[in-house]
Formats: sequence, C-alpha cells, structure tokens
Amino acid sequence: MKFVKNHQTAVFALGGLGEIGKNTYAVQFQDEIILIDAGIKFPEDELLGIDYVIPDYTYLIKNADKVKGLFITHGHEDHIGGVPYLLREINVPIYAGKLAIGLIRNKLEEHGLLRQAKLNVINEDDVIKFQKTSVTFFRTTHSIPDSYGIVVKTPPGNIVHTGDFKFDFTPVGHPANLTKMAEIGKEGVLCLLSDSTNSEVPNFTMSERQVGANITDIFRKVKGRIIFATFASNIHRLQQVVEAAISTGRKIAVFGRSMEASITIGQELGYIRAPKDTFIEHQKINRLPEDKVAILCTGSQGEPMAALSRIANGTHRQIQIIPGDTVVFSSSPIPGNAVSVNKTVNQLFRAGADVIQSNITDIHTSGHGGQEEQKLMLRLIKPKFFMPIHGEYRMLKRHVELAYDCGVPLDHSFIMDNGDVLALDADEAHIAGKIPSGSVFIDGSGVGDIGNIVLRDRKILSEEGLVIVVVSINMKNHKVLAGPDIISRGFVYMRESGDLISDAQSLLSKHLDTVMERKTTQWTEIKNEITETLAPFLYEKTRRKPMILPIIMEVSEDK
Amino acid sequence: MKFVKNHQTAVFALGGLGEIGKNTYAVQFQDEIILIDAGIKFPEDELLGIDYVIPDYTYLIKNADKVKGLFITHGHEDHIGGVPYLLREINVPIYAGKLAIGLIRNKLEEHGLLRQAKLNVINEDDVIKFQKTSVTFFRTTHSIPDSYGIVVKTPPGNIVHTGDFKFDFTPVGHPANLTKMAEIGKEGVLCLLSDSTNSEVPNFTMSERQVGANITDIFRKVKGRIIFATFASNIHRLQQVVEAAISTGRKIAVFGRSMEASITIGQELGYIRAPKDTFIEHQKINRLPEDKVAILCTGSQGEPMAALSRIANGTHRQIQIIPGDTVVFSSSPIPGNAVSVNKTVNQLFRAGADVIQSNITDIHTSGHGGQEEQKLMLRLIKPKFFMPIHGEYRMLKRHVELAYDCGVPLDHSFIMDNGDVLALDADEAHIAGKIPSGSVFIDGSGVGDIGNIVLRDRKILSEEGLVIVVVSINMKNHKVLAGPDIISRGFVYMRESGDLISDAQSLLSKHLDTVMERKTTQWTEIKNEITETLAPFLYEKTRRKPMILPIIMEVSEDK
Repeated sequence: MKFVKNHQTAVFALGGLGEIGKNTYAVQFQDEIILIDAGIKFPEDELLGIDYVIPDYTYLIKNADKVKGLFITHGHEDHIGGVPYLLREINVPIYAGKLAIGLIRNKLEEHGLLRQAKLNVINEDDVIKFQKTSVTFFRTTHSIPDSYGIVVKTPPGNIVHTGDFKFDFTPVGHPANLTKMAEIGKEGVLCLLSDSTNSEVPNFTMSERQVGANITDIFRKVKGRIIFATFASNIHRLQQVVEAAISTGRKIAVFGRSMEASITIGQELGYIRAPKDTFIEHQKINRLPEDKVAILCTGSQGEPMAALSRIANGTHRQIQIIPGDTVVFSSSPIPGNAVSVNKTVNQLFRAGADVIQSNITDIHTSGHGGQEEQKLMLRLIKPKFFMPIHGEYRMLKRHVELAYDCGVPLDHSFIMDNGDVLALDADEAHIAGKIPSGSVFIDGSGVGDIGNIVLRDRKILSEEGLVIVVVSINMKNHKVLAGPDIISRGFVYMRESGDLISDAQSLLSKHLDTVMERKTTQWTEIKNEITETLAPFLYEKTRRKPMILPIIMEVSEDK
Repeated sequence: MKFVKNHQTAVFALGGLGEIGKNTYAVQFQDEIILIDAGIKFPEDELLGIDYVIPDYTYLIKNADKVKGLFITHGHEDHIGGVPYLLREINVPIYAGKLAIGLIRNKLEEHGLLRQAKLNVINEDDVIKFQKTSVTFFRTTHSIPDSYGIVVKTPPGNIVHTGDFKFDFTPVGHPANLTKMAEIGKEGVLCLLSDSTNSEVPNFTMSERQVGANITDIFRKVKGRIIFATFASNIHRLQQVVEAAISTGRKIAVFGRSMEASITIGQELGYIRAPKDTFIEHQKINRLPEDKVAILCTGSQGEPMAALSRIANGTHRQIQIIPGDTVVFSSSPIPGNAVSVNKTVNQLFRAGADVIQSNITDIHTSGHGGQEEQKLMLRLIKPKFFMPIHGEYRMLKRHVELAYDCGVPLDHSFIMDNGDVLALDADEAHIAGKIPSGSVFIDGSGVGDIGNIVLRDRKILSEEGLVIVVVSINMKNHKVLAGPDIISRGFVYMRESGDLISDAQSLLSKHLDTVMERKTTQWTEIKNEITETLAPFLYEKTRRKPMILPIIMEVSEDK
C-alpha cells in the first residue's frame, strides 16, 4: 500500500460503508492485514435475478500473503455470508465465537470448502498475536448470541471495531462487558469504527427481556393456535418463545429449514434449553387441543418461499389457517419487504386468522442500539478518531454528529466510501488513497459474471419483453430462403395478436426484399434495417419498446 | 341483474374493495345504474412493465343503456384515472366538482376524447334526478379541493358513499358540511360505503392548517435555498407553501410537469392565491440570494423520473444541490416507494443538502381520517347497513369493528370482494350474486392484451434471462443446413462466456445429428429435444434456469 507510510496504520472497508450489508473491513500495518467480517448484501430490486452481492476482493487476493486472519464479530449473513467466496480465493484462518463458527461450518460444508478451512473458536479473553499486531475481543449484546467487538492493536495505536451492537442491560444471554470496554478506552483508542444502523433512532432500544414478557402475555391470552414467525438467527428470541410455550403448556412444532437448523444448533450450544417433549413432530399438531399448540416458523419478512407465506396463501402442505389462529410477527419489516409482509398479513386475515404485529404491540426490538447507546459506546471507548460504519450515508452522517456531541471534533471523524483508505499516525489521520472496491454480483453459481449489460437487458426484457425476427438468407445470391419469422416473449400474447404479428411480418418481408437488392453482405446492416423498420411500427401500434433481436441464418445451398 | 329482485337496490364495486386503487362503485335500481368514481391502480412490482390497472368494465358495457351517470367524489388518479378507458367503451355523462372536472378535461384531451365527453360541474346543493333515482352531494375534507360524498336516493332507501375523507375542522379550503351529513343521517340511510384507508390509525389526523404553521416555521429558520417536494394534487398544501414563501420573502420556482399544471389550474380556480411576482422563471433562481429562493417540485415519492430524483442524482439540467440547501419531503412514502425515497434522501445528503422528512417534523398529514373520524362519520350517517370500501382486507375488517362499536350489528356489515353484489331491501341485505370483475392491465396503448402468460415470461426473463437456439433444417432430407446458433440476453455476458456457449453448441450439434437420423418431421419434437438437452447443461454450469427458446427455420432448397 504505497500511499500509506511505514509507520502508519491503514483502516479501510471493502464493503459496509454507506450501505447495510457486505460488511468487510480491514486494518493493515505494514505487511499484516487483519480482516474483520466477510458479509454479503441482499440485492435491491433493480438487481434483477441477482442472489447476493459481495465486495470486490481484488486487493486481498493481490496481498494474500499479508492477510493474517479473518475475525468475525457475529454470525449474521451480512457479516459471514461472504466467507465461502473469500475462502475460495484466499484460505485465511478464521476466528469467531462458537455460534458464528457453527454457522460458518454449515456454510462451508454446503460449498464443499470445510476440509481445508482453518476455523478457530475464540473466547472473550483470548489474545491472538501476530508479528506486529494482535487482536483482542469484548463481549457485546446483539440480536444473535456470541457477538463481539474487536480490538486490533497496532504500533501507532489501537483500532476498535464494535461489530453490530446494542446495550441490553437485561439480555437473555450474557451481558455486554462494560468493564472491558472502559479498560480499552482507558488504555487509549486511536480509532473507533462503530455501528451506525440506528443513529436516527432517539433514545435506548427496548430490552430483549421485555420482548419475552410481552410474548408470554400473548401466549397466555390467546385461546387458539399461535403461529409465531421471527428471524431464525435470533436464538435468544427463540429461547423466549420456548419459555413462553413451556409456561403456558403449549408444544412447539418448528417449520422452515433455517428455523429447524437454528433450533438444533441453539440446543447443541446450550442457548436453547427445553425439556425433551417441548418440540413435537409436525403430524402431532392436529392431535393436540388448539390452545396447546405453538407453530414456530420462518417468513416474518414475507419471503415468498418461506413457511409463513405458504401458510398464508394456502399452499403449505401441512398447515392450513383455521379460525381462531393467531399469527405473531416478532419482527419489523425492512423497507424493501414492507409490501410483501403486508400482502402476507392481508392473506392471513382473509383466511380467518388474527394477526399481531410488532408495530402494534412490543414483540420485537432492534438488535442495533439507538442514539444513547451509540453515545455510551463513544464515551466508554473515547477514541481519538472516529469512523461510522454499517449504515446508509444519512446514518453515517448522523452518527458523526453524535460523536461530535461526545467530544470527537468534526475533523476527527471520517465518513468514508468503500475502498477509501484512512492512514493513521499516533496523532493524525487522513484519507490517503483508494484501493479497488465495488460490488460483485452472484447469480446461481456465477460470481461476477453478471455485469451491467446483462442487468440492463434483464430490465428491458422485464418491462417491455422481446421480439425476435429470424430470417434465413443465402448470402451468395442474396435471397431470403425462409422467414422473416417473428417470435415474441413478454411482449404481447401472441395468440391474440395475430394481426399485429402478420402485419409486422409483411412489412419486414417487403423491406428485406429491397435490402437484398442492394446485395449487401453485411449482417450488421441487415440487422439494423430489421430493427429500424420494426421498432417504430411496434411503438406506433402498441406504445411499447420491446427488445428487438434480429437473427440471420446464413444458409449455403450446397450443404 | 337477475339475482337482484325488482324491489331491491344493488350495490357493488368493480374495483376498490380489498385494495387501494381503481375505485369504481355502482348503485343499481332496476334499469338505472349510478356509477361512483372510475379510478386506476398503480401496479405492484410483480406486474412487470404494466403502467396501470383498471377494472373489468364488462358488466357496464353489457348494460350501457342503463348507466345514467358517472359521479366523481374527487380528482385523485385512483378515482378518475379510469375515465378515458371507461369513456372509450360507454360515453356516460360525468358529474364532478370543478377541480375534478378540470383534471378530467386535461386527461380526456390527452386521449383525444374531449369533444364527445359530457362533462357537468356540480355544486353541493345540486340534485341530479333520473327516472327512479336521484343523486345529491355533501362536502367533505380531503387532500385535494372539491371533495364530495355522494347520496344515491333509491326507492328502498338512500345509499351514501363518503369518497375519501377526513374531518379537518380547520381546513385550508371549505370545511366539511357536518350539518348536511347530520340531515342525511336523520332522513335515514339504508347503506353507508365509507373510506377505510386509515382504520388502523388511532385518533384524529392532524389538520392541514397545522402543517401550514410547521412549513412556515421551516421557511423562517432555514438560511439557504428550500427545495420543497410534495404531491402535486394537494393544492391546499401548495397554497400553504405559497403563503410561507410570501411571509418569508422567498420567490418560488416550480419544477415538474404535474406540479406546473397544478399551480396553473389552482390559480385558475382560485385555490392558489399569490401576488403576480411570487412565481419566478427557472433561470432567475441564480440571480436571487439563497434565502430568497424556494423550489417547489415533484418527486416526493422518489419517482425515478421526477424533478427531485434528478436533482438528487445530479442529472437535473437546471438545479444542482449546493451546500446549505434544505430539501423538505412534505409527504409520507407509500410502502412500495420506501426504498426509492430512501435512496433519494441518501443522495441528497451525499450531495451536501440537509433533508427534512415528515416522520421527523410534522410537515405532512394524511388525507384519510383515523378511527375517530371514521366513527364520527358512522355516528352522523347512522346507516342501517355498512360496507367498508377503499382499503386492504385488514383495513376493511378493522372498519367493521369500528362500525360495531358505533352500533352497527356485525351481521349488518358486509366485507365484500370486487364483483360481489349486495341486494338491499328496506330492512334486509345480503350478498346476492357476482358480476364479472377482475383486473385489466394497461401497458402502453394496450388495454387488456397483457395477461398472466406474458407476465410470467417477463418474470423469467427478468431473473434468469433468455437463451435462443436457432437452427435451419431441410425437412425433406433431414439435414441441418445452418446452426445451431446460440444467442443469449440477460443470461451471461456473451463475450466473457465463449467456452460455455461453444460447449453448448457442440453438445446440441451432436444431439441434433442423432435426432435428424430419426427422420422426424415434428418441429415440436425437435424443439423439445433442444430444450431438454440444453437446460440441464446450462443449469449444471451456471445454476441458472434461463428461458430457452428453440427456433427452427425450415429451408427448402429449391427456393
């Protein structure tokens, strides 16, 4: 990294700045790179057909020998989803809490990468030492167990990365280690990278414990079956559902692949504790009275293929809504999912269920701290320099204002873009340069093979459809041997548009005859003539601009 | 309508039940049909490329001679957008308040339908009489001037349709006519059809007047330019912006086609009152000090082509964000637009603007009344039977509960679907049957020519892309004359996938030779062979399932 001096520590992100997702941060001192998280992002709607987005790993691949370890703050997809794609490029040792290691193990197994992976479970007190840098941890609270903040000790100073956090003083699992945070702050922190997700939310977020009390209330009051949907990874929430069920004499049937996996791993690791007969087989549901049944399922974000969506639209093989059912959404929809959640809720009401959502009663809380929690972190860690991370631009900006209120001068805060490199001395910091960064799209098994051209084509196809013109031409005697045939998809319903198509055909046919008379041998010219004749005709008739794809088959008669 | 008896009044909807949009209601007594509103709906995301959705007008077309008039409650698109499509089928006289008539006139002019249209401006005291039925009006308050409730008097009893409403006791325009509503209630109402949009919102909505005070506050405090985005049709809001500008010495430049049209029509009808020099030409903006400028524009819902979106992403020809600009969103995003609004806000922050949104300060209020307002309507109108309209199923359901609280027995309320016909005697009501109903898609100039097959194709094309296989075959001697050629769009970037394509080509080539040996003359068989060979190959290589389109050109050598 030629623009960073030998005595400076570089801090940068490959993903996670100005966005929610693909969190991938790095701290580099000379020839030692400490990676923090390797996440994915779920694509926005305009990325048609894209499954995930990961960061561009070019810089890491070029400097593979320098990357000492990948340290994971917690096991959410936006922090670990990129691990298989990264490991395929550089086989870096991974350090993470036990739940995150469990989830990464499953993921690597699916990708056939488990055997060569170097996985290390860390505990809060561990110190991982390299030649010039070392890494320590502090326990935080978040919506998944085993969440840690990470301290990277480098010669110019200590760099602290909070991971995702809230301050839950009455959590379901371990409390955050405020003492250790205070000690880290006392020792001195050169730069703090802190979670900005809820920087626009005033005050403190509700404790997970309060959510549990409200869930138990619902379990007590509801007379019929309870269908409970939440995030599978929120294992503390699942434990609270288990407790509510036990205390009200309900048995739990679990639906959805990720929910079943979470219950299994949660029990293995001791986060979910339940008597053996708490969970029941699917087929036993109907043998129990309705007020003894709880159905725990995926689909709280209205995901079309999840258990709850299929229950709502009547296509689930085992569960049908019956009057008296109460469906609980223990979640809040992310903005992109608001429409599909709403659709699911309407379907459930229509099917006769009652629906309880978290905006009506307090049965969900965010895993990300509000403004007061972000300020508490700033006051404990007392950083010299500050970099807001994980959040949209507006959130990063607000977080800088909060840091200012807590004594960090505005010129000591850095709102960076992915790829920007912050060079830090013991008492000075500035953006020194930029490394390759950007988004890589994953579609099926393809990594990075979908670019803007393919996406642009998909967009046109999705909105206007496609018209194909095929014509066989003998290029030697300039004769049309067959066609032009017209085939369309996504444009108009062909069977009902016979006139339109045959008019277009005869228009093209005539025009091609005149083109052939010119004795052109240029395919491009013929193709252009086809497009330029057909496009205005179709637009005039339909006010649509489908993609037009002329295909010319050259046929030599002597074949 | 054979399932409704001669002494009964039928009430039904072609659109607007269980949905937000395409409001189209009808009251029929014997051979007289009174239509109320003719709206469109904006398509949900899964309706790829569809511009609007209108109801199926089949029943009206078949009974065209019976349709006495179309009565419009107010000028919003979801109440008047269908007028041109309806008028193309049946040229029914239209009755509406003066603003709605003005908007409908513009619309019909665009569609070339103005000359033959029969437009009538109504006043609140008008009584429109037909042979057996008559229609009267009562003034309501809503987010557009000239909003009316409609009373259809029929022999079995009076049917009241509220239109969209809130109870704003301190509105910017005329107040709602509570006295007349009370008189209508006293005279006796057989059935009330009432707006359900905000039946899940407790309490009263804020008055438009309070919004105005808050806007003026912002105009007073902000030092730089103000860029103000709101709904163009909310003419009262525009008037309040005008007043805020005048009182703080700012001049207003107007951007966006619909905003310019609203300012013009608002001034013509006297709803917008401003000294002549209040509005300035676009090019004059830069000649004024920044604190003397207000820019009024479209785009408060993040619509990609609207003025504000182009200002935010830096593609607007005349306005660039400069530091010190404050952008005001005087609106709240509908769920489907949350993502694009958020994107616009981030772009504005990034460009250096400050952004004020209605969830942070009270600079927007809903045009639809909350629960207390809905109950007030129920208490004034005192209907015997009740039909919640205009809202998703969950809202209709909640509205029935509110009606129950106000004395309407549960079995006197009817949650109906579009097409359901409610038959009403003087003292009895039941759902008697169903008329054709459904959604008709408009794409470009095509009305109803896009169906589920085309949409399904668009969906596959948008997510997986397309692979075309073209082959010229001499069917007489069963020889492949040219191809197979492979062309793809939206699948993989062809230039970088040469191997994949050439492997597929040789696979198909070999397979076609064996198919030809069978001397088949069935195109379908050959096409199936191509698809069944190629699909698994492509899935194995890419994990994608593109649409595969085999095209066979039959070439006769003697041509």
